[in-house]
Amino acid sequence: MINVVKIGGNVIDNPESLERFLKDFASLKGKKILVHGGGKEATRMSEGMGIKARMIDGRRVTDRQTLDIVTMVYAGLINKRIVAMLQEYGCDAVGLTGADGNVIPAVRRNPVPVDYGHVGDIDESKVSDKFIGDLLNGGHVPVFCAICHDGKGGLLNCNADSVAGAVALGASRVESARLIYCFEKPGVMTDVNDENSVIPLVTSESFQILKESGIVDKGMIPKIQNALLAASKGVAEVRICNAEALCGEGGTIVRER
Amino acid sequence: MINVVKIGGNVIDNPESLERFLKDFASLKGKKILVHGGGKEATRMSEGMGIKARMIDGRRVTDRQTLDIVTMVYAGLINKRIVAMLQEYGCDAVGLTGADGNVIPAVRRNPVPVDYGHVGDIDESKVSDKFIGDLLNGGHVPVFCAICHDGKGGLLNCNADSVAGAVALGASRVESARLIYCFEKPGVMTDVNDENSVIPLVTSESFQILKESGIVDKGMIPKIQNALLAASKGVAEVRICNAEALCGEGGTIVRER
Repeated sequence: MINVVKIGGNVIDNPESLERFLKDFASLKGKKILVHGGGKEATRMSEGMGIKARMIDGRRVTDRQTLDIVTMVYAGLINKRIVAMLQEYGCDAVGLTGADGNVIPAVRRNPVPVDYGHVGDIDESKVSDKFIGDLLNGGHVPVFCAICHDGKGGLLNCNADSVAGAVALGASRVESARLIYCFEKPGVMTDVNDENSVIPLVTSESFQILKESGIVDKGMIPKIQNALLAASKGVAEVRICNAEALCGEGGTIVRER
Repeated sequence: MINVVKIGGNVIDNPESLERFLKDFASLKGKKILVHGGGKEATRMSEGMGIKARMIDGRRVTDRQTLDIVTMVYAGLINKRIVAMLQEYGCDAVGLTGADGNVIPAVRRNPVPVDYGHVGDIDESKVSDKFIGDLLNGGHVPVFCAICHDGKGGLLNCNADSVAGAVALGASRVESARLIYCFEKPGVMTDVNDENSVIPLVTSESFQILKESGIVDKGMIPKIQNALLAASKGVAEVRICNAEALCGEGGTIVRER
């Protein structure tokens, strides 16, 4: 079983959380892959350079300068810091973007109706299971950030949850794969203020109900959609849980049925 | 024969030179590896953020902030730009630092007598030929920047010529390797103002004479030393030439005897 684990900005932004998480991740037995998001460093960097982050509907617009910054911060600073820490913890990490080895080809998002700039969408059927398999079989641990490419020389800023789903689907063509979305909450909850309200199982059907009733909030919807897509296309197990629960049980299992 | 090619800042800083060079590099047949230096982007970035580059004897001091910047610029921006361009030219590039796959372990330079900060020296005998071999045999083209690590979680800024030499020695344990240092001059010259004064062959013995007579200038000395080290330890052929002569002949061959 290949474990594909995704962490977001909340873990990355806190040095103690990151250290604890990476030690847990390093202790996971067997084949594994890490996918990481961005965190606040890119925004800090932009501001330090006097570049204002432009957002549309809560999503960052990736103009040329912003693409350079996210490439530097995600593929450079954060990715290589994580690689160096994992190496320290005895985990033979190899830090990658989707451009490296052409693992994750992407397509620039249609600029109509909204032009998000250098933002890419992934066709998960095109993820290179060959290279992922070679790395895993060689005892390495791929660490992906969410920068991909268009195959025509252009880098693209992608959604890290989608990258994780695509990588898990690629991995599941090598052998059975488990996808774990780690975030700051203990799972999908009926009440975000009640730690005991974790929903143990979400299916396509119950997701519809949760969505229509407004129980799951806006931020959770794309995460569950990514999880459902992965589950429906061949990832053996998909779980959404707290980063601190990586090595334990609990959280929300997402399954098609 | 594995070609290990090193390019410096002068090629990287000029978009047209970089494009021409990468097309030439992509056209090289057989197994190959690219090692790239930094260029002026890191200095520009530092200045943009109000950080003054501190130099001692013409060498940048890598304090904590500078380490972050060179990691972002070399391992992020430049490395991934090169990877995306090579992918466009049909070359299956994989961008790496020395931390990835623990390929190039380094040791922080002794802070006595001069503390250069997070600067590393490489023990070329410790370069992982296994991972390099796996990548090459899988049809990939490793692209290294000169960021390495200490194995204890710390990244280190290394000299790109030394990284190229170390990588060539690692590669030469896989199969016979050729190391090509590309720079802005046509080779080692007796007169830097005379394009026709290229010295076709430099050996350990002739290097002593060139050094003592002051014919080779300061900047060339460490490059030739790196070249001689690689040649003496097992790299089959070492050449110093202009980036535009990559696919041709000419330049200076460096050999032990």
